[in-house]
Parts: sequence; C-alpha cells; structure tokens
Amino acid sequence: MARLAKEYGTPLYVYDGDLIAERYQRFQRAFSKKFKNVKICYAYKANTSLAVCRILRELGAGADVVSAGELKTALKVGVSPQDIIYTSNSKSDTDLANAVDAGVVINVDSLDELEGLGGVAASLKKTARISFRINPSINPKTHPKIATGLRDSKFGLHIERGIAFNAYRKAKAMRNITIAGVQTHVGSQIEDAGSFVEAAQRIFDFAVLLKEKLDITLEFIDLGGGLGISYQGGKTMQPEELAKALEQVIKKGFKKLGYELALMFEPGRYLVAESGVLLTRVNSVKKTPYKNFVNVDSGFNTFMRPAMYEAYHRARVVGKTGLQETYDIAGNVCESGDILARDRKLPKVVKGDLIAFLDAGAYGMSMASTYNSQILPAEVLVRGKKVDVIRERWEQDDLYWKQKIPEDLQ
Amino acid sequence: MARLAKEYGTPLYVYDGDLIAERYQRFQRAFSKKFKNVKICYAYKANTSLAVCRILRELGAGADVVSAGELKTALKVGVSPQDIIYTSNSKSDTDLANAVDAGVVINVDSLDELEGLGGVAASLKKTARISFRINPSINPKTHPKIATGLRDSKFGLHIERGIAFNAYRKAKAMRNITIAGVQTHVGSQIEDAGSFVEAAQRIFDFAVLLKEKLDITLEFIDLGGGLGISYQGGKTMQPEELAKALEQVIKKGFKKLGYELALMFEPGRYLVAESGVLLTRVNSVKKTPYKNFVNVDSGFNTFMRPAMYEAYHRARVVGKTGLQETYDIAGNVCESGDILARDRKLPKVVKGDLIAFLDAGAYGMSMASTYNSQILPAEVLVRGKKVDVIRERWEQDDLYWKQKIPEDLQ
Repeated sequence: MARLAKEYGTPLYVYDGDLIAERYQRFQRAFSKKFKNVKICYAYKANTSLAVCRILRELGAGADVVSAGELKTALKVGVSPQDIIYTSNSKSDTDLANAVDAGVVINVDSLDELEGLGGVAASLKKTARISFRINPSINPKTHPKIATGLRDSKFGLHIERGIAFNAYRKAKAMRNITIAGVQTHVGSQIEDAGSFVEAAQRIFDFAVLLKEKLDITLEFIDLGGGLGISYQGGKTMQPEELAKALEQVIKKGFKKLGYELALMFEPGRYLVAESGVLLTRVNSVKKTPYKNFVNVDSGFNTFMRPAMYEAYHRARVVGKTGLQETYDIAGNVCESGDILARDRKLPKVVKGDLIAFLDAGAYGMSMASTYNSQILPAEVLVRGKKVDVIRERWEQDDLYWKQKIPEDLQ
Repeated sequence: MARLAKEYGTPLYVYDGDLIAERYQRFQRAFSKKFKNVKICYAYKANTSLAVCRILRELGAGADVVSAGELKTALKVGVSPQDIIYTSNSKSDTDLANAVDAGVVINVDSLDELEGLGGVAASLKKTARISFRINPSINPKTHPKIATGLRDSKFGLHIERGIAFNAYRKAKAMRNITIAGVQTHVGSQIEDAGSFVEAAQRIFDFAVLLKEKLDITLEFIDLGGGLGISYQGGKTMQPEELAKALEQVIKKGFKKLGYELALMFEPGRYLVAESGVLLTRVNSVKKTPYKNFVNVDSGFNTFMRPAMYEAYHRARVVGKTGLQETYDIAGNVCESGDILARDRKLPKVVKGDLIAFLDAGAYGMSMASTYNSQILPAEVLVRGKKVDVIRERWEQDDLYWKQKIPEDLQ
C-alpha cells in the first residue's frame, strides 16, 4: 500500500481484482447450487470504472444499469443486451429510445413511462422487452436513504389496489411491448434475510396471479440486490445463507407457478466493496481541548459515504500497529460535516502517515465529485503482482474543461 | 426559462449575472458605509464556475479559497494574490508551497501546519503571510453539517487555554513567517446576527490581547462568511442589518485596539445563491396510494443540497400557476433518498413540464458529480438579454475520460 501511494500519489483508490472475481464466483455458486437458471446482473452504480465492469463481464455477469451512461458502459465492456436490465424511476424518451434500440430489458417504473415507451417503440418500429419494478412495501433494517422498498419510496408499482396487476394487463394489450419479467428490490446494505424472503414471497404470489388471471408467462423474476457486507469486519449474511433462506419460498413458488423461469439478482456492494481501499495521506494532526484531528488529503468529494449516510468504514494507519490515541479523521472539504471517521482508536498518527479506508470499492469513486475544486483521484487495479492504473488522476487544469468565459468578460 | 431549456437542454443551471453584481454591490455598500477599509473575499466554494468568479473579480471581489484548485482559479480570473486568503483544515506541503509561491495569505489551522509552513517557506527562501483561523466555540442556528464554529468542529485554533495565543507567539518568533491577520467563521446559512456579534467580540478581544501581550499589530480581521438567504422566499437578515448589528462591537474594538485595520468578509451563498435556477424536465408522473411523484431528469448528482442537508428549495412549474396537487419531486438517481422536494403543492404536472428550482446558484453545480453515470449539466449566464454558455454539457463518452482498461482485459 505504501508503495502504491508513493508511486501513484494520494488520494488513491486501489482495487483487488482477484477478490472481485472471488466474490462474484461465490455469489454465483451459492445460487447456482440451488437453482437451475440463475443470472447475476452486477449493479453498475456501485463502481462503474470500466476495468471493474470489464472484469465482471469476463466472469459472465450481466448488468443492472440505471442510466443511459451506465447502459452505454455495459455495452462498451461487452455485456450482451439480453443480459442488461435498465432500471430507473425517471427515464426520458431519449433514454427509452436508446434502450429499445439496444434491445435491453427495460424495467418500467410507472404507467406514464409505459405509455411513453409504447410510443417510442412504435416510432422506432421495434418491440420493447419489459419488466415492471414492483414496490414490495417492505421496511428493511438499513439507512433510510437506501431503503428503496418502503411503501412510500419513489420506486416501483404497488401490488396493493391492483396497481401492478393493471399495469401488466395494460402492457399485455400493447403492441410493441413484450413482457419479459418482474423485478423488485428491498434496499441496499441489508444484513438480514427476512426482507428478501418476504419480498420473494410477494413476487412469486404476484407471478402466480399474472399466470392465472392474465395468462402471462414470465421469462424471469429479478429479486434485486442489496446483500450487505460487514463494514465493521465481523460476520454478516453470506450469499450461501441468503440462498438457503430463499430456497423454500422460491421452490414453492416454482411449483405454484407451474413453470420454471430465470432467477435474477443484482448484487453491487457485495461484489466490489471489500475489494477496494482508499489511500489518503495525513497533512497535519491537530490536538484541541475537545478532539484530536487527523487531517487527510481526501474529503467527502472523494469519499461521500461517511458524510452522506453516516457510514462507518474501518481506518488503518499503514505500517503501524497499536491503539494509542483517539482521533477524528477529518476530510479536506471546507465543511464541518466532512469527518471521514469519528472517535477512532488508532496508533499515534503523524504528518505524512498513510491512512487506508477499507471496503471503499463500492459507492466510493462512483460518487466522487470535484467539490471545493479538488481534482478527481486515480484508481489502480491489482491482480496478483500486476498493477494497472485504470483511471488517471486529474490535473488541476482539468477543472476548467468545458468552461468558457464570455468574451466581454475576458 | 422555457426557451433556455429548449435551446440548451436539461438539466441546466442558469445564472443571472446582473443579480450577482447587485448582491455584491449591496453587501459592499452596507459595510463600506460604516467602516473605512472593507475587503470582500468571495467564497469560491459556493460556485467556482470561471465566469461567475470573473464577474465578481471585475466588481472588485477578492477570493476566499479552500484548495489548490480554487487558488488557481482565483489567480486565473485575475484576483491579486494580496486579495486571496487560503483557508483549509488540511493542506499538504505542496499546497502550502504553491500558496507561498503565489504570495497569498495562508489561513493556518494548526500548529502542525505552522511548522510545515515554516519549513516550506524556508526552502523556497520566501516569507509566508499568514493569519490563524480561530475556533469561536459558538453554536449558530444552522444545519450541523455546516455549523463550522462549534467548539468540537475540525476548524481553527481555540482561544481557550491560550492555544491560539501560543500559536501567534510561536509564529511571531519564526523567520519566514509574517503575521497579517486573524480569521474566524461561525458557519453557513446563518440567519441571525447574534452569533456573528459574539464571534466579532471574541476576535477583537483576542486582537487586543495580541497587541498588549505580544505587540502584534494586525493588517486585517476576517469575520468569515455565512450570511444566509431565505430559501422560503420570506424575509431574512440583510447585509445592512448585519453591518448594523456589528457596528458597535467593531467600533469599540477599533478603539480598544488603538489602530484601525482592514475588515474582511467572505460571503459566498449570499452573493450567488439567488442568482441561480436549476431547470429540469419532467420525465414521468406517478401516482401511488401513498404519494404522487414527479420524476425529473436531475438527481442529487446534479443538485446535492436536498439529499445532503435536507435543504428546502422552492420549486416552480414553468409557465403554470395554481396549486392543485401535492407531489414529491423525485430525482433520477437510483436511491430512495434522492427526493429533491417533498410534499409540495404545485399546479397539475405532466410529462414534459419544466421544473425550476430556485436559489440554486450556490452549492449547486460546484457539488455536482457523475454518480449513476449521469453526465454533468451545462451552465448559462444571462445578463440583460445576453445569454452565454459558460460550461458545456458533458457528452456520454466523457464519462470514460482518463479511464483505461488493462490490455489483457481488452
């Protein structure tokens, strides 16, 4: 780590490509052992760096994309359109046209969108393959900002009052629309199987209803992502446990349905979080009567999760051991909320030390910004002894990219 | 607005250059009427777009910068080094060297930094002009993430226990260091003069102490920024009121000090927030049993404040009036926390409508990211009838800028 920081500078995101592969294969195996037709669509938003997406595509992952940009990335790294599902609560007609054109599954979020999509597909003279996102009305134990399956969340159509059912009925009657599946998602960083099981139960019951009342046969059921990791470093639910917890409800579901279909999952954090470390250099250490601060060269511009979600990430002082002092690790953004870690027992820290934040592979670089006119960091990928720069650090002049001063102001 | 959105696309930041000028002049007048030597350093972090910084520089504003990038921007738009103050809790030796080299005032945040700065200046054979940032130990009424003057905030040196005093004593004894001033800052979006007055009182008392005990004569006292605006559109504290509230404590301070010095202020939000509007297009409208959602083509990637600080921004449906329905305006980021406005009475909204978020000129574009692989929006500057694009919208391929896929993965 010290060598990488020295060679490539800080702040620096470092990913372990072998660990990404290990995690993917573990997830894949856990479900494929129990179910015949399993499709894993990596949730690109966790980490959209091209090389990371490419590793996962090489391993066979499909893509769960949430924007035109992510869709383009999935195609660029070679994912087949039929292995891409495009989810978003808010897609423009241009977004829809691109997706229809590419031939990916469009996960429709509202009736308004369905209508728009019908028009778009007709004008392209193509057929759109769709699923609907179902709001499972489930309250998982996670941070409210990422509890996507709450009944008043912005996502999906409700089963209550026949809303989702009517959407399928409507879609079935539309030319230019083919119904491919059904999707749901309970939230992110879920550490307990209960909400997954509950959601699966509802979705299978719903699929049975579609079969019985509308004679709709689905190609897939997509149970979304959300498998958590342990940011504290302790035990947490593993893919095998989740697969086991889901086994009965899914097998019963298949029986009731009378046909087997593909099971889709959209892990993101689980696949890439633990592979990543953020390396950041200590600029100064300050003792105050109330707190000790370690000031580093990253802030929430580089690493948003602590400020945005009060997220906990383990911090290590590279090359040092012991727990001598309690510090807050303060980011370099000019806001009092920019504290990357609070009240941590660490070895004695001095200027020049290197801090490693663990589990920074998901929602790290993908959320980075240039706030405070900080340049974007570099990323390196490590596989065995091979080290590749997969994103070069910005230069300061890059901050002016695309900007223009009107002539009369020059 | 409708014409700008049509011509330049959405999401789009639009700034009223004339209003920026009006605000600057009003702030300037309010303080210059009461005090002889007033220096206004625009807080760049609020909006670092080159054209905006350039307008303020043309009007005579100095710069409050918080990073090497902002320092470069200030110099680039032509601010004189002596009108730049560089504040940050975490500066690297490279940052310090650049600042010494440029000749700006370095607002030192810790003893550790002071030592580093001494070494840096010596090796450059230059003298660093400094102030210290003082932690005023004040609890202003604002969002905790931006209450920078709390006693356990990461910013500044405390007056308690002689900490700040000892820092000045130490600095005075250092070669290569010239003491220029003292700085403090109570927080951001402050709507009440009390905390400013309290901070000013403490800083003047402290300056008297420096004079009496250390025979230090300062060139300036910098009371920071933080003047709020009314995001609700009602009345709030204006610069004249703040100047009036501060008048007595400052004039008494001058008398006690026995000399007059420059008064510095660092407004950011006040100068630019109200000038800006974010225009965003409605992609779809969804009614659920629990909420009605207006889905737009911006999210917290484009406009961070609502998700990050639970900030309220007025929303207008362009070209429509009346208050017919209650909606949540949902962003297009794939997180349940991405709601730009909650429970708003609006005219009936349909797909294709244009929503304008008001007061988006500060901490809007400067905090934008490409999260979810969304491209960065464009910015236009309007002055009278003149419209200039000051930042071009990204293309989708720009997301791959600086990225590389290792050869063996291609």
